Amino acid sequence: MSDKGVLIGVDWGTTSFRAALMDESGAIVGRVDGPHGLLSVQDRGFESVLDQTVASWEGRPGRLPIIASGMVTSRTGWVETPYLPCPAGAAELAGALTRHVTPAGRTIGFVTGLSFRHGDGEPDVMRGEETQIAGLALEGTRLAVMPGTHSKWVRVTAGRIEGFRTAMTGDIFAAVKDHTVLRLTTADRRPSAEAFSAGVVAGMADHGAGLLGKLFRLRAGGLLGDFDPATTAERLSGLLIGAEIAEARSFAPDVEGPVLIVGGEALAARYATAFNVLGMEAETAPADAAFAGQFRIAQAAGLV
Amino acid sequence: MSDKGVLIGVDWGTTSFRAALMDESGAIVGRVDGPHGLLSVQDRGFESVLDQTVASWEGRPGRLPIIASGMVTSRTGWVETPYLPCPAGAAELAGALTRHVTPAGRTIGFVTGLSFRHGDGEPDVMRGEETQIAGLALEGTRLAVMPGTHSKWVRVTAGRIEGFRTAMTGDIFAAVKDHTVLRLTTADRRPSAEAFSAGVVAGMADHGAGLLGKLFRLRAGGLLGDFDPATTAERLSGLLIGAEIAEARSFAPDVEGPVLIVGGEALAARYATAFNVLGMEAETAPADAAFAGQFRIAQAAGLV
Repeated sequence: MSDKGVLIGVDWGTTSFRAALMDESGAIVGRVDGPHGLLSVQDRGFESVLDQTVASWEGRPGRLPIIASGMVTSRTGWVETPYLPCPAGAAELAGALTRHVTPAGRTIGFVTGLSFRHGDGEPDVMRGEETQIAGLALEGTRLAVMPGTHSKWVRVTAGRIEGFRTAMTGDIFAAVKDHTVLRLTTADRRPSAEAFSAGVVAGMADHGAGLLGKLFRLRAGGLLGDFDPATTAERLSGLLIGAEIAEARSFAPDVEGPVLIVGGEALAARYATAFNVLGMEAETAPADAAFAGQFRIAQAAGLV
Repeated sequence: MSDKGVLIGVDWGTTSFRAALMDESGAIVGRVDGPHGLLSVQDRGFESVLDQTVASWEGRPGRLPIIASGMVTSRTGWVETPYLPCPAGAAELAGALTRHVTPAGRTIGFVTGLSFRHGDGEPDVMRGEETQIAGLALEGTRLAVMPGTHSKWVRVTAGRIEGFRTAMTGDIFAAVKDHTVLRLTTADRRPSAEAFSAGVVAGMADHGAGLLGKLFRLRAGGLLGDFDPATTAERLSGLLIGAEIAEARSFAPDVEGPVLIVGGEALAARYATAFNVLGMEAETAPADAAFAGQFRIAQAAGLV
């Protein structure tokens, strides 16, 4: 139990669980990272995970408010919440908090995800990233990319998300790598900056069109000796990231200034290289803004 | 043993084995389809498959010439043969036959695959489809599509393949369906012509660009209630076929007349629907032209 803590933040994803104790300035004064991703929770035993992780901060369950975000609010999570339409920032997310009192007496505010309709009416959704963006407290109008299994390209004005576009890049990378004719093994994964860059350029070509053909050429080029098959994974990674950038360019063409890369170190570096190859400006932001976002949302909701 | 037969054709793929006995006019006078795809052959026991399947036509091994085509000439097949560059038709394929005398005394002519360099230098390969195209004996200049795991778009003039473009459509369909967030089950596979058509139109949009985003919208649309998630597989199929058609349109823009669909019945019907949705002319050809192609190649090689 800590007397300094005023808020517990829980960032709960499919395969990850992180919690933080924050003081009245929002500074993190306690942390726990656990292997309690949603997929590993048996029989909906969500609260017992909290018992094991944050109870020492609470003294008694319910003494501190909890804010939770991430896939914990999806259909396969603890409390399913509806998507909030854009535009939305900390204030709208605070207004849409789903408050849930648990059997043990905890009060949890679940941050919901966002939906967006593209100009052509096509749908998009996010869950978790909205809290990270709120935590960055961006000024002006910015375009941020959040690389990952489902990369998000987010247009933000004065900290509010105006719209976003998802690309299934990481998900497709994994599926193509392991479950198509490429069937890459570790022998096909030699690091190669040159192969990655060549992939980026190929992916970007024709405004990102032709992907079904470009993917096969990774196979054909290896067979015909155009490149060392050991670099195929790097080429594939570059190809998909290049295609993603080409696709997303048309999403917010009017936003000036560098693209803000919000992601873990290795993936952020990969995207920074891709932008550099393409002669586009980019800069990186702290990836770990989820707790800061939860604090802002809690403030806007009057919880701290 | 049949006195009428003058040639044995073997169409040998990764998961299929078909053989035919042909008379001096090329007519098929005997057939065998077996579960002896290359993947099922143990310890390189290729000849024992022939012993089990075609020996009754031969009387003694070696009495009749054999022509083999398909993945049997790939690295994982019986005799690996190098790719022959385009343009190539029956005459060039005959000239490039790899003749192999087996321990049992059979003489087999292995038909090799083709390679092609696109205008931008990018590589492409095929193995097996060249024999089918030779069997169709097409006149004039035609654009043919051969749908499948790796769909081939083939430009043919006077029966010779001038160039081709591969799209990894079927391979990506299977990988996305089973190994991404979509994870489609049989419950997601309700037949729906409407969903398929909507997918085709979406895939074709923006000249086939934006695929990484379009794929995610199959997920988002299901979550937001835009469509019945049970139709997701149909939408995905349409999306990828639409993207493939958009990509391939730029491959041979000068070829006039209907696109020739060369494929099995179900897949050919799916592509015919897609072309119809897009207002493009198409017609179907017999898919089963491999033996006819082998006969033409054998003729050109002086074997019959």
